[in-house]
Order: sequence, then C-alpha cells, then structure tokens
Amino acid sequence: MRGLERAMSPTQDTLPARMRAIAEAARDAARRLSHAPTAAKDQALRAGARAILARQDGILAANREDLAAARAAGQGAAYLDRLALDPRRLADIAASIEAVAALPDPIGEVTDSWRRPNGLLVKRVRIPLGVVLMVYEARPNVAAEAAALCVKSGNAAILRPGSDALRSSLALVAAFGEGLAAGGLPAAAAQVVPTPDREATFALLQLDDLIDLAIPRGGPSLIKAVAERSRVPVVKHYMGVCHLFLDATARVDQAVALALNGKVQRPGVCNALECLLVHRDAAPALLPAVGQALAGAGVELRCDPTALTILSRAGVKGVPAAPEDFGREFLDLVIAVRVVPDLDAAMDHIARFGSLHTESILTRDLESARRFEREVTASAVIINASTRFNDGGELGLGAEIGISTTKLHAFGPMGLNELTTRKFVVEGDGQTRA
Amino acid sequence: MRGLERAMSPTQDTLPARMRAIAEAARDAARRLSHAPTAAKDQALRAGARAILARQDGILAANREDLAAARAAGQGAAYLDRLALDPRRLADIAASIEAVAALPDPIGEVTDSWRRPNGLLVKRVRIPLGVVLMVYEARPNVAAEAAALCVKSGNAAILRPGSDALRSSLALVAAFGEGLAAGGLPAAAAQVVPTPDREATFALLQLDDLIDLAIPRGGPSLIKAVAERSRVPVVKHYMGVCHLFLDATARVDQAVALALNGKVQRPGVCNALECLLVHRDAAPALLPAVGQALAGAGVELRCDPTALTILSRAGVKGVPAAPEDFGREFLDLVIAVRVVPDLDAAMDHIARFGSLHTESILTRDLESARRFEREVTASAVIINASTRFNDGGELGLGAEIGISTTKLHAFGPMGLNELTTRKFVVEGDGQTRA
Repeated sequence: MRGLERAMSPTQDTLPARMRAIAEAARDAARRLSHAPTAAKDQALRAGARAILARQDGILAANREDLAAARAAGQGAAYLDRLALDPRRLADIAASIEAVAALPDPIGEVTDSWRRPNGLLVKRVRIPLGVVLMVYEARPNVAAEAAALCVKSGNAAILRPGSDALRSSLALVAAFGEGLAAGGLPAAAAQVVPTPDREATFALLQLDDLIDLAIPRGGPSLIKAVAERSRVPVVKHYMGVCHLFLDATARVDQAVALALNGKVQRPGVCNALECLLVHRDAAPALLPAVGQALAGAGVELRCDPTALTILSRAGVKGVPAAPEDFGREFLDLVIAVRVVPDLDAAMDHIARFGSLHTESILTRDLESARRFEREVTASAVIINASTRFNDGGELGLGAEIGISTTKLHAFGPMGLNELTTRKFVVEGDGQTRA
Repeated sequence: MRGLERAMSPTQDTLPARMRAIAEAARDAARRLSHAPTAAKDQALRAGARAILARQDGILAANREDLAAARAAGQGAAYLDRLALDPRRLADIAASIEAVAALPDPIGEVTDSWRRPNGLLVKRVRIPLGVVLMVYEARPNVAAEAAALCVKSGNAAILRPGSDALRSSLALVAAFGEGLAAGGLPAAAAQVVPTPDREATFALLQLDDLIDLAIPRGGPSLIKAVAERSRVPVVKHYMGVCHLFLDATARVDQAVALALNGKVQRPGVCNALECLLVHRDAAPALLPAVGQALAGAGVELRCDPTALTILSRAGVKGVPAAPEDFGREFLDLVIAVRVVPDLDAAMDHIARFGSLHTESILTRDLESARRFEREVTASAVIINASTRFNDGGELGLGAEIGISTTKLHAFGPMGLNELTTRKFVVEGDGQTRA
C-alpha cells in the first residue's frame, strides 16, 4: 500500500525508484500471501468478484474514458472491441474469479516424499513463485483474471496494462482490492502500475531481486521487447504456427471436420490451424473434399504446386503459396497447404516451421501415431483431434493464465500449478553429514 | 559435427556465426536425441566412460598444459587444485558417468493422465529441454558430468569452460564423443566451445531460438554476467547464505553437532552454514557450548552484542560483527552469530538476509517446526538436520547438475528430471471443439 501510494505520487522519486517501491510492496505482500489460509484467499476472491459487480458504474465510466482516448488515437474496431467492457463482460469477469475461488488450492501440496537410509524424510512441497509481473495490452479482463489466479496460488501480482487499458485496469483492480481487504489479505497482493510511461515496464523488468516471473501477453513485438530487455525470468506466450498432418490413412470426413474446426471456428487465436500437410498417397482422395470445405467457409488456400494441381483438377480454388507462407501465423481465414511424401517429411516440416505450440496428426495407423507422439516437440501434440483443444479449460486445468511456448518451467497452458514451484523440506532428528 | 568443424576453423566466419553453427548442430543433435532409445544412451555413456580411461594419457597431457598456463598466469593453489586432473580423478569422472547410465531414463514418463468428458485422453509426457548451455569455470570434470546428465535426459550439451580449462575439457569431451559414436548418437550431442574468446559466451547467450537453457556454475561475477546478458532462460546456481536457527527448545548436543557439521565439515561449499541465529531464551544455555565447539574447530565468531556478551562471560572468544557480516557467504571458517527474541524475528532475519538456498531450524516444539516449514522460503527448508544435506546425492536424486536458487523451473538440486519439461499429448478419435 505504501509502495502504491509512493508510485502514484509523481512529484516524488524517479521512475525506477517508484517501480522498485511497487515491487517491494509486492514482495512483502507475497511473503504474507505465501502461507495465507485457503479460506482467506477464497473469501477475498469472492468478495472481489462481488465488489466488481457493485462498482460496475465506476468501472464502466473508466472504461468509457479509455475507449474515448483509444478511439481518438485512431485504434481500429477489433482493438476497441478487445478494450470494451459492458455489464455482461463484467459479469463474466466476476464469474471467472468465482471459478478460480472454487478450484483446489495448490499451495502446500506434497508432490513427492521419500525416506533416506539415514532416516531423513524428504518432501517436495508446492509453494508460490512469489511476485508475478503480468504485461498485457488492451484486454482489461486480463487484470482481474490474472490477479485472481495469482492470489489463489499465493503470489502477488503486478499488473502492467497497455496505456489504453490503464483506467479500466485501475478501476477493476481497485474493486478487486476491496475483496482482498475483506479476506484480510494485503492490498499490494494485486497492484496496477499507475503510469502509462513505457519505461515503467523496462524498469520493472530489471528487478530480478524482487520479481520472480514476467509473463508478457500480447503481440509478437511486445513479447520480443519484454524477452530482450528482461533480467526477470520470462515465460513467453508466443505465436502458434499450428499444423495438421493428414496421414495416408486419414478418413475424409474426419479430415474435413478437423481442418474446418481448426481454421474456421476462431481463426484469430493462437491454437487455430495455420498449415495443412497432406500425405502424398492420400492427397488425391483428401484434398478436394478438405479444400472445398475450407474454400466454402471463405478460407484462402495458399498451396504448394502439387496441392494446387490436385485442387484445380477438382475445381477448388487455391493460390500459389509464397515461401514465407510456411511458418506463418495468419490469424485469419488463410491456410497454407503442402503435400509431403511421408510422415518423416511432415515431421521435418513441423520441426522447421512450427512454433512449439500445437501440432496434430490425423491417422488410423498405429505406428504413425506413435512416432508423431514421440518425435514431435510442441507444448501439445494432438492425435486425431482439433488443435483448438490446446487450452487450459478444454484440457481440464481450470482457468489458465496463458499458453507457454517456453519449454522451461511450464510448457503449454499455465494453470494454478504452473504459478507455483516446489521447495524441498527435510525432516530429521539431528542428522549430520558424514 | 559440421558445426564443430566450422567453429574450429578460425579463418572462416565471424564469432557469432561460428557460435550459431555450434548451436545449430546442437539443435539438430537434440532432435535425434529426444527420442533415442534408453539402451543407446546408456551404451554411449558407458562407452564414453571407458574411452575417458583409455585416453587417460592424452587427457592428462592436455590438463598439464592447462595447469602450466594457469600457473604462469599467477593462479593460486586452490584454483590450480580445482583445475588439476589425475588418474584417480579421471576414474571418479568415469564412475560418475557410469552412475548416470545406471539411473532410470526420465524421458517418456507419463506424469499425469486424465480423460475429458468428450472422450479425449490428456497425458503429460516428460521430454528433454533440447539444448543446454553449461557455462563453468575451472573444474574440467563439470564438462564430462554435465554432458552425461544431458545425454541421459535426451538433451544436447554445449559446454563452455573457463579459458584455463579449455584444453582439458576438449580432451575429455573428445573421449566422451567416442562413446556417443559407439551408441549411434550424434557427435554434436556434446560439444565444447573451442575458443577462449570471452565474447563467445555472450554470442551463445543471444541464441534463444536455438538454446533452451543456460546454467552458469561458478562465482557470483560469472553468474551475474550470464544472467544480465542472456536472452536464453537462465537457471542460476547462486550463493548460499545458509542459516541455522536454534529455537528455545533446542538440545545442546544437537545444536553443537549441527553447527559444527554445517560450518566445519566443508566450509567452501554453498550449503555450508554462514549464520547462527539463537533464541534469546536458550542463548545462555546453548551459545557457550556451541561457541566453544566452533572456536575449538578454528571458526571465527562474528557476533551481535548480546551474543558477544554471553560468549565472553563463558570465556569463548568472539569478535563484534560488522553490519555486512549478516547476509554474507564467507565460504571460510567464519560464522555470523545473532541472538533473536523469537521465531518470528528469526524468520524475518532469514527473509531479509537469506539467499533462498538452505535454511534450517533445530527445535523440539511442534508449532515452531510447522511454522518454519510453512513460512520460510528456500530451495531446502531443513528441520533438525544439517544444512549440508541440500545436495542431489544426499537427498536421493542421483547425480545433480547443480543447485538452483532460481524459483522458476527447478528450485534446489537439479537432477535428471530437472533437465526435462513436459508436453501435453492429447488422444482423440476425431473430436472438434464446440
């Protein structure tokens, strides 16, 4: 609280000193949160969700100011839509905080335990990471949902919105903070960095003595800037260049269903399909039907020469792919298509062009499935299902804070457990080392 | 292999290009290693251990050159001892590689698995990290032992010795490479960076598209330099400012045993004891005996005023502590001593001055033990045993690659499991997302 007040007083201190005060307040809060009772955390979350609904008018007023400024700055409709709040979206935010409260508390779980020959009992016990810095862009709901996940997992959250979402984030987290007070938890458990100054982010990213993890969520340029300038460990939630390989034994109806669902259901997200690889032996049977379905849904097919020939013979429209269309995240109704000689060529393509996010195969051949599962590296390897399932909710983790494409610490959807680490606890009765 | 040849050809390419070639060769090797059969890996390790013994003369000759150069550069005796190899140390290295071969293979382990309502089977499967960069100083055994741990866990290792250990490391890893060939594994699974140029390290640390993890092992300045300049994720093996809190109920004989073992058995290591905290109520009973034992073992006691008074009354020699003696890693026969009013003060002291490495309590009080276990954050929290047990071998993890003081990914001793990550594998029969 002291840190936040200091940070909000622009006449005082330099920007790095203000950011350090925020991080110190977070660190102190984290120490208390680390062993807060589950009931106190859940009470705080539920009270926070109620306060967000009770403070709805003020939050929406702040959001209107953010929207007006963003509109004046010339932001487009899609951007404004991500920024906008309304009563329904606030109800969704409150519901997602309630859902986090209902999840089991990961802290204190003994994940392993064994006894040593000298009688020592060794346990590995789940503990919070400490202080988590969330750097995001326009979506104000990230503030409240990330704060809820952090508090439930015993971490203090520092929330760093894009400047367009600053007023909305401050208003949301102020309401959430009423909940923290109701649960007897420190207000600095969830702080919004109260300045639009871009340098604030980089000042925070120097504080590796106080901040344990930085999670950037947003476009590639944000993620790159954070990763390049951070001394704090970063878990990147990077782009998804997701492939579907249709093996020689793939069924036509399933190929159509998976391609459509992967590409069309929600093309703007990271687990959407960006490239179709088709086994040469099955391409004449599969590609016309799959291509027709995709084209019928308004998808542009950017094809290698073989795929283009097969499609054009079947009367399906495609265009020649440029070299840069492979390995590209379109996030749009566009897909790259390539015919490959075999499974090895498909896996070589994925190793070269994939982004470690989500890779899938459709096959009825046991050996193909086994090899794809074993040999493909990605946060999710999917056999005979849509790439769209690489999502914390769909995989059953509960709420997620994002999908990590960094192999270290967490790979794939990050739920509550991924906001924790484990310490060793050793219980003895006076043992010394020989 | 191609990468290594290019890197060793000084007439060709810039330093960054040569480092990229090494990292690309490692990445390609890692892809093959990631699903290499356990038997092939174990065969490679055992053959590598044999080759190190068979090539003993050449390795020792290279080591003599390293030693001569280090001696000429004015390095002290302790440094030269860390650098030196002899037949017995080579036998130890070979034995430790054999021991890694005998450990269970972590790769492919399904650590969790559940079925979703829509029939999808979700599994979390252990996979290698990919490419691991080990940056170390004088000890050439690190090269062979880190290479063995990496290969067993399916990772490719890039080994970056201090310039004084370069010839020894090259000779050791050349012999180890004969083993890789015998197991049918790629030579680039273990590469030594073949140049003493300091910039090579920083060039490698830029390659976050090719290298998955950097582990610096050495003094604080090395670790700081790596952490500050790396884009590759770093797991730090930083210093250990380890405390022992003697609670009001501590037994005198156990207090003496734990203090002596922690401080005297091997004072130069990171899990050695650096600071003794003593409960006020027990200080008159405990401190004279503990102080006498430590002083008798040649330990200098740097004390706060209360401790100094108690010790001098008992005729035990101490000196006043300077403020900077608290939070200091002496790595020597020196210990800081402080009397604290209660458990909370002890935990406050540890939160302020500890380095997250190893923290211990000696108590017979259940509530003190429980609170210390729950409220103290450190890679190992030890109740009624010596801090010296925070070690992979002692805790039963098998060989360790170091002790992480970074909370992310691995906290505490890093064994084979900590050189892996987990991917999600999703098995369906055509499911699409609604």
